[in-house]
Amino acid sequence: MSVSVHVAGVGSTSFGSHPNRTLQSLAVEAARAALADSNIPMDRIGCVFVGNFVGGIMTGQELLGPIVAADLGLANVAAVKVEAACASSSAAVRIGHDLVRADAEEAVLVVGVERLTGAPREALTTAMTAAIDLGSEGHAGLTFPGFWGLVMARHMHLYGTTREQVAAVAVKNRRFGANNPLAQFQKPISLEEVIASPPVADPIRRFDCCPATDGAAAVVLTSEALARRFVSPSVRVAASVLVNGPVRVTDYREITSHDGTVNAARRAYQAAGVGPQDIDVAELHDCFSIAEIVDSEDLGFFAAGEGGPNILREATKRNSKVVINPSGGLLSKGHPTGATGCGQIYEVVMQLRGQHPNQVPQARWGLTHNGGGTAAAVTVHILQSP
Amino acid sequence: MSVSVHVAGVGSTSFGSHPNRTLQSLAVEAARAALADSNIPMDRIGCVFVGNFVGGIMTGQELLGPIVAADLGLANVAAVKVEAACASSSAAVRIGHDLVRADAEEAVLVVGVERLTGAPREALTTAMTAAIDLGSEGHAGLTFPGFWGLVMARHMHLYGTTREQVAAVAVKNRRFGANNPLAQFQKPISLEEVIASPPVADPIRRFDCCPATDGAAAVVLTSEALARRFVSPSVRVAASVLVNGPVRVTDYREITSHDGTVNAARRAYQAAGVGPQDIDVAELHDCFSIAEIVDSEDLGFFAAGEGGPNILREATKRNSKVVINPSGGLLSKGHPTGATGCGQIYEVVMQLRGQHPNQVPQARWGLTHNGGGTAAAVTVHILQSP
Repeated sequence: MSVSVHVAGVGSTSFGSHPNRTLQSLAVEAARAALADSNIPMDRIGCVFVGNFVGGIMTGQELLGPIVAADLGLANVAAVKVEAACASSSAAVRIGHDLVRADAEEAVLVVGVERLTGAPREALTTAMTAAIDLGSEGHAGLTFPGFWGLVMARHMHLYGTTREQVAAVAVKNRRFGANNPLAQFQKPISLEEVIASPPVADPIRRFDCCPATDGAAAVVLTSEALARRFVSPSVRVAASVLVNGPVRVTDYREITSHDGTVNAARRAYQAAGVGPQDIDVAELHDCFSIAEIVDSEDLGFFAAGEGGPNILREATKRNSKVVINPSGGLLSKGHPTGATGCGQIYEVVMQLRGQHPNQVPQARWGLTHNGGGTAAAVTVHILQSP
Repeated sequence: MSVSVHVAGVGSTSFGSHPNRTLQSLAVEAARAALADSNIPMDRIGCVFVGNFVGGIMTGQELLGPIVAADLGLANVAAVKVEAACASSSAAVRIGHDLVRADAEEAVLVVGVERLTGAPREALTTAMTAAIDLGSEGHAGLTFPGFWGLVMARHMHLYGTTREQVAAVAVKNRRFGANNPLAQFQKPISLEEVIASPPVADPIRRFDCCPATDGAAAVVLTSEALARRFVSPSVRVAASVLVNGPVRVTDYREITSHDGTVNAARRAYQAAGVGPQDIDVAELHDCFSIAEIVDSEDLGFFAAGEGGPNILREATKRNSKVVINPSGGLLSKGHPTGATGCGQIYEVVMQLRGQHPNQVPQARWGLTHNGGGTAAAVTVHILQSP
């Protein structure tokens, strides 16, 4: 038996700098908002999944599942932390989705949370490297800006992608973010400013990078039966996919296309019965400007090598088909790693309900794409408007 | 629809000191052993859950789900880390169980792993404190020996439990461990040695404490249909329960009985259709000697206050009903936190197959009890012999 799964409610803190806030206080704020938004009674919640990546390394706090559940007033529920690096909370959504879909649970709460600001840059780099195999590439000194610098250089070499095309991603997403009250960066930026910003990992420059961010976002998943009884409007989860891909650069056939994204997207389109041409709005994992180009190609929005030209000629801005990252994306909304996956679902749900500050007109199909490690854990969710 | 869930295979590294081994190499060793033991073809595995508590804090490595899956040769599976402090891997078993039971997956691999030896004592204490709410009790200086010291003093005060009765737990478990080749401690210990060992958190002494341990253990869960086709002998999972309990000492009505254990046990007995009197063998969470007494009372093996006298008169040794911790328990086998839950299931499965070095004669029903934090996350599993 297979149950139709719905997003009954979403909630989010603002993304940015939240000094003096604990992980659990951010998580509880987002969770309470999602529960209130859902209208689902608390005693229907059987599972609480807290998506979090480096809470242990950055703050020393683990056991977030039981702590957040207890602080919400939930007793005798199954509460755990789920970790898949930067895809932690969307991976948790996939598990919760499967439990509801198979009728093992009628309602599941997923909260993503992270605290990253205020630490010395070296500490942050070390923490992020927890998602690289320390026995091989971590030991050799690979970092995430380093990985994406390799990808960008190779994409430029293979396809003639230009510096301007890549910078245009940051410009577009900063413009969207300036109109999203939840976003960390609220000011537009010019092509020239991106290109002139200090180098980080050549050819990547500072404004090609997402910031360190604090925040939490939450999603309540429920069965169609419970959604009909309590929820209005509810967004249907047409596909929820999590796959693993290669965990080391040396395992890639070609680093400008990521098996995890390609395979997750193929499965998600098949499950939902739609294709990339049907998607109206997508929130994808633009941890660096070049990532949006690579991911939008791997998701089938553009052919390989055509992401750059399309983005520069503004094919993915509002009122165009498909609109990518109208939240501002990780580049502008921010990247509280463990919270990002739920944050993307929050944004797409708002779009499909017609309640987004950067509303895509008549958005019917939305997609989220969230990656952990070097595309080692990839989720794709496809959501359908009420 | 509800599918009968079976433990198709188990595997384990030895528990003890494994310097120079990475988390992933230990996890892969245990996982390969479990997969080989199960006889289930690799391509049937749809999910990999890695139970781990402080891998981030102690080693800097996260993303263990995709890394372990990739190193096993698995692609396009859903692979995540699950964390619930010292109950991480048994909590992951509960999620895997629910996915198989609801027919969402036909086979799930759960691996628990931890590396704790070799670190300075302060670093280890800090890491373990990640399972205490740092904003309240952690900030006030509570540690796990401190918590269990409070519990022991209160149990002695309320019930007249004696120093000798508590020490008898360590003596019994060390004797069992001396005959378990997987155990960290291989030498028996006397009542006098326990009582004369240095104080840690009064009235707890050194030999009342489990050691720091490295190790991994793994479990393959599968549907009855797949078990019939591939597995012999297979052990049925009659109950798999995870509940959250109070996360702070100040939330307890009485610290000598733990709601998490009481509620998880009640649900598990109900699901399995058996009671504590039916259990032949139990592996329970004796992180400190006093914990075995408290837990055995909360699990219904003894009435409140009667755990101490029963253990001193050797009611729970081999050939007695019920035999508790014939593996040697956490006190003697060791406590590689994230691996402990799967390690307990490994031990009970061996008992129910009649293959254990400390075999309980005619063992038909086995129970495991695993706790995270101050009984903030508790699992109870009930297993039935083939």
